[in-house]
Amino acid sequence: MLKEELIAQIKLKRSCLCVGLDPDIDKLPKHLLEEEDPIYEFNCAIIDATAPYCVGFKPNTAFYEAYGLSGITSLEKTIKYIKTNYPSHFLIADAKRGDIGNTSRMYAQAFFNRLECDAITVAPYMGEDSVKPFLQFENKWAIVLGLTSNEGTKDVQQLQVNGEALYLNVMKRVAQWGTPSNLMFVVGATKAKMLQHIREALPDHFLLVPGVGTQGGSLKEVLENGMNKEVGLLINLSRQIIFASSGEDFAEQAAQQAQLISHQMQTFITL
Amino acid sequence: MLKEELIAQIKLKRSCLCVGLDPDIDKLPKHLLEEEDPIYEFNCAIIDATAPYCVGFKPNTAFYEAYGLSGITSLEKTIKYIKTNYPSHFLIADAKRGDIGNTSRMYAQAFFNRLECDAITVAPYMGEDSVKPFLQFENKWAIVLGLTSNEGTKDVQQLQVNGEALYLNVMKRVAQWGTPSNLMFVVGATKAKMLQHIREALPDHFLLVPGVGTQGGSLKEVLENGMNKEVGLLINLSRQIIFASSGEDFAEQAAQQAQLISHQMQTFITL
Repeated sequence: MLKEELIAQIKLKRSCLCVGLDPDIDKLPKHLLEEEDPIYEFNCAIIDATAPYCVGFKPNTAFYEAYGLSGITSLEKTIKYIKTNYPSHFLIADAKRGDIGNTSRMYAQAFFNRLECDAITVAPYMGEDSVKPFLQFENKWAIVLGLTSNEGTKDVQQLQVNGEALYLNVMKRVAQWGTPSNLMFVVGATKAKMLQHIREALPDHFLLVPGVGTQGGSLKEVLENGMNKEVGLLINLSRQIIFASSGEDFAEQAAQQAQLISHQMQTFITL
Repeated sequence: MLKEELIAQIKLKRSCLCVGLDPDIDKLPKHLLEEEDPIYEFNCAIIDATAPYCVGFKPNTAFYEAYGLSGITSLEKTIKYIKTNYPSHFLIADAKRGDIGNTSRMYAQAFFNRLECDAITVAPYMGEDSVKPFLQFENKWAIVLGLTSNEGTKDVQQLQVNGEALYLNVMKRVAQWGTPSNLMFVVGATKAKMLQHIREALPDHFLLVPGVGTQGGSLKEVLENGMNKEVGLLINLSRQIIFASSGEDFAEQAAQQAQLISHQMQTFITL
């Protein structure tokens, strides 16, 4: 997907919501467990219910790989369902890959060519040749981990390098390997003040922001501190939306949550 | 697998060779492509041929995931083949995973419980809560990326933090999260001098060493600088062994390469 197309969707809906499809089987509504492929059925219902309020979907591959072949089947069917029915939604494989060049290339081909995802999340620890293969596909995106939203962010990402935080150093370095049209960054929302510094350093890049809600970040703070002139944000929520109810009304409740959040976004996205 | 069991295997064979199962389909012997599952057939032949000379196998999951369901099937069958026929060999899923706690837990369950691997490679960028879930399984191992063997190692891993290289800082920090009985480190062999510093900082941990051969590292230098009193090394070779020949004699040639390397190791492993 082109950057312009993504921005057009955001402007159209005045929403930068991305729905995380992390279908932990222990949390699925019980009545779905009788279906042949409960994860797929769950995802389809969530996708249909939330699509009007969001501009992207982000399956985290771990939640599928954990169930082996049947999980991978659910993932591939889910991706196909989105591509077929919601081709204007931005589709992110949250896989956090990163390996030496020829191996990263294998991953890129798998996620971009075979599965037709728009973007994949990538870990930066192995450096340029581990990230570059993801930047060589037309209209496809690498979303590189900058500052994550978990507790462990202090262990590596917040180490000091030449008087600045490692994550800032890494993000500025990675930014040189691509452009704001094929590269985004993951920036955890529990650190809204840090968002200001990141925005100063990277005024033009889209930021994928997890951690709003369940992980403690404030939607308002993220929008106030993270937006640029093209919005420049994709705010991801998973559990708060997809597990809003564990009853038969799970899809309705998910829609309500997504609508609520998109309404909050509309106050800020006034294009 | 217990550390003592791994060391017993190394002593028995006087070899610390690990064979990397990275079956790039473009490089497989042509005659195998007619088989129903060429990757699995290739792997089984390589495993049978090299098992006498090595103590471990390391499939890199990218080479399987790239082919979707059929690739995952090949991976699962390969793992089962190793567990059934070579239960004394150390089985590493080279997946380089790392995510927030509940997601890392999903990966750990998948690789340790469902697939019964002994170890999985893990990226450290997201910190303690992304690594810890891999350390909570009895007799299972996390092998955390320290210093990798690719060009991009200079971009993040070799940044200076408090007067020392980031990778050393990270490895010493990670070492506190586990013990030498459930934690190893990936240390690229193209930097044999750095191996001395790493060995000084971490005298007791096993190091998984890629990059010997194709990527330029010297086997002799690695053994001289990296061994500890329990050997403490797993040296991985992939392409140099598994693609030693692309003809019908590929397994024989792989065996010959593995034997040659294990002979070189015997000069150093004199327990």
